[in-house]
Amino acid sequence: MLKKVLVGNAYTAIDHHQIKFLPQALIEIDSSGVIDRVLEPTAPDYQAAYQAAQQAHLLEKVPADQVIFPGFVDLHVHAPQWPQAGLALDKPLAAWLNDYTFPLEAKYQDLDFARQVYHELVHELLAQGTTTVLFFGTIHPEANLVLGEESLHQGLRTLIGRVAMDNPDQTPAYYRDSSSQAAIVATETFIHQLNDLGKDNPLSPIPVITPRFVPSCTDATLAGLGRLARKYDLPVQSHVSESNWEHQYAIDRFGIHDAAVLDHFGLLTSRTVLAHATQLTPEDQALLRQRKTAIAHCPISNAYFGNGVLPVNDLLAAKNRVGLGTDISGGYSPSLYDNLRHAVALSQVRNDGISRDDEGIANSRISMVASFYLATVGGAEALNLPVGRIQAGKIADLQVVKDRFKRPTETAQERFERILYQTHRSEIMQVYTQGDQVYQA
Amino acid sequence: MLKKVLVGNAYTAIDHHQIKFLPQALIEIDSSGVIDRVLEPTAPDYQAAYQAAQQAHLLEKVPADQVIFPGFVDLHVHAPQWPQAGLALDKPLAAWLNDYTFPLEAKYQDLDFARQVYHELVHELLAQGTTTVLFFGTIHPEANLVLGEESLHQGLRTLIGRVAMDNPDQTPAYYRDSSSQAAIVATETFIHQLNDLGKDNPLSPIPVITPRFVPSCTDATLAGLGRLARKYDLPVQSHVSESNWEHQYAIDRFGIHDAAVLDHFGLLTSRTVLAHATQLTPEDQALLRQRKTAIAHCPISNAYFGNGVLPVNDLLAAKNRVGLGTDISGGYSPSLYDNLRHAVALSQVRNDGISRDDEGIANSRISMVASFYLATVGGAEALNLPVGRIQAGKIADLQVVKDRFKRPTETAQERFERILYQTHRSEIMQVYTQGDQVYQA
Repeated sequence: MLKKVLVGNAYTAIDHHQIKFLPQALIEIDSSGVIDRVLEPTAPDYQAAYQAAQQAHLLEKVPADQVIFPGFVDLHVHAPQWPQAGLALDKPLAAWLNDYTFPLEAKYQDLDFARQVYHELVHELLAQGTTTVLFFGTIHPEANLVLGEESLHQGLRTLIGRVAMDNPDQTPAYYRDSSSQAAIVATETFIHQLNDLGKDNPLSPIPVITPRFVPSCTDATLAGLGRLARKYDLPVQSHVSESNWEHQYAIDRFGIHDAAVLDHFGLLTSRTVLAHATQLTPEDQALLRQRKTAIAHCPISNAYFGNGVLPVNDLLAAKNRVGLGTDISGGYSPSLYDNLRHAVALSQVRNDGISRDDEGIANSRISMVASFYLATVGGAEALNLPVGRIQAGKIADLQVVKDRFKRPTETAQERFERILYQTHRSEIMQVYTQGDQVYQA
Repeated sequence: MLKKVLVGNAYTAIDHHQIKFLPQALIEIDSSGVIDRVLEPTAPDYQAAYQAAQQAHLLEKVPADQVIFPGFVDLHVHAPQWPQAGLALDKPLAAWLNDYTFPLEAKYQDLDFARQVYHELVHELLAQGTTTVLFFGTIHPEANLVLGEESLHQGLRTLIGRVAMDNPDQTPAYYRDSSSQAAIVATETFIHQLNDLGKDNPLSPIPVITPRFVPSCTDATLAGLGRLARKYDLPVQSHVSESNWEHQYAIDRFGIHDAAVLDHFGLLTSRTVLAHATQLTPEDQALLRQRKTAIAHCPISNAYFGNGVLPVNDLLAAKNRVGLGTDISGGYSPSLYDNLRHAVALSQVRNDGISRDDEGIANSRISMVASFYLATVGGAEALNLPVGRIQAGKIADLQVVKDRFKRPTETAQERFERILYQTHRSEIMQVYTQGDQVYQA
């Protein structure tokens, strides 16, 4: 039983070197929101399927000046930081945290404030073509539930973490778990509450074990969270070696690297996504690879706080799992388009160096195809979700994007690149999750 | 005699460290399109001026959710390359030039094609909040005149250069000046033709002496262009030390640096704007400073082709003249907003380094205020034009920008930063040149 059939020019990533162009593809979406078949005009069944869809009034034609992409997967968003996106980016990390971020996050004990911000944010992310988001919330279980409700209500696929942070040395008294036990109990309570939300809805938010980062947690909390991840078989998210400071902090406190600390506490799993990772050593990278732990590459944020450009090419070549994240508000932009462009441009700077005396690091360039792969397939695989591709068996999370310009002599590959370079929010015409339209320009 | 009075919240750069916030400023624009007075509510004349403007039906109120900025000045646009913006950015420079750029530029002997592209481009630039542009055209005088006509017709303030390129070693036979004499004659003819266009219109395009870059010109052409610049007292534009290759080319051919070659031929003047400059030595930078020659900083393009990040902070501190350029299509974006954001982010990468083993170059960070200064005052001063500030005596080239979000607790400085981080084309509501509205969303 079909729910909807889209027909139009579509692009989907094969791997990080190749895209597949599907001209006038017929995308059949079944009643559960899963792609049943993708037919190209050369397929024997195409005409019959087209006509059947038309007769059943299921056909939605995407105009020739628009293209269909998979919806984007954003692996790193601090939902509560949305009101300060674009602020304080010239501040050092400590000032950014203590003068801006912690005071703002503490405000989410006010549920009206939470409702207002999260309503706006969820809408904004959908409007940017993002269909799946891995969220950091705050320490407040209720505000995080509001985020879950807003996501479910507006049709955004989400994974949401209640942030744990109890180390008095690294967190302010007004915004901290009062004890390790309190952090674990609140996390476990939140898991149950979120699991009760929208139970049979395929977009029901998934709870995520979320130690803010190693510095903000005591050993007992890190250990307790590792146990919860195992007990409930849940995804895990945190930051890893984001900056020189964070990388050194773990060495000073534990005598081992940040990634190894997370591993020690059972937090490096095949369901873990770690943001930034710019300061990982090759050994750290190998550890993540071995654990099948994914990296959320946040190119804009890393420019401000990462003290380095992630070696995306090396990681992909070594088969580390990598996706893309906006890192609101360490990154100012809610758009993965902005981030995939920065991923390419910054990889060029890594390749070519920062000054006339600097030769850069050879083979660091990534292509726009690779960046698109990160924003779709990379993110989907990091979360072990069947999204990110326009392909039979994948969930129909899609975006339809307008090409404002006519360039009749371009190849399909060129058009793909140009659209990715030129798309902003105003070009995103429609967004679908689970086969349902959830945003229209 | 006033033509128009705008009232609203405005921002203008004082220098590269400070902006001035003008809450509910009354901007009086005289009949010639020049700002007569800027009154703040505390000014004794404010109420009387407000009422007079209202009674004369001259008052235009900018809503509280919008702000007024000076229009942006784009110091480097290759107009003919607009159709390929966003293409071929992963190609090496030689392939980019020979397989994409030169074949495209050669097409502008077709004036219908030129009309179509330039109509679209001029509209696009205005829609992005850009009010003044320094253009490279092609070698075809007629197509460049079409660009002038379109700019004048749509109300974009422009300076336009007919490109000279006659070195058979570095240019293709199908797209080259047939001789040095041909290059000089065509340039001189174009100067007269452009000067005849819209003679008494204050937006009449200004001709610019335009050797493409040192490699594409013979000595005789460089010398002849230097003579023309002097003879007609005209602005000059070219590229300088954009890449390792270009920097080394001048050394190999002349035994001196690229900047010194331009100087030798009389092409470094106080009316010269040179794009990129990423590979300049401190001595080269001092030479530009001495000649009052300006640099067009093109951050996006430089990431792809510049082999380094321009040391903007050092240049501003040394009092080099610097503005901002999109460098369509070495840069993919027609937006100076995209470029001012990249200018900040890439300055951070220069500051912090590209990898964990790289400490970067201290004091390279620029603030969003500095980047805004480059896009307004820096560009205006580079072109010696009285634009770029909201201030009595400056021409009323302005943009009105919408703030999509309500953030009631922000300071004016924070709001300024956030708007610059979040503005795209769809937020640009109105654009004025010479006091006339030339774009409306």
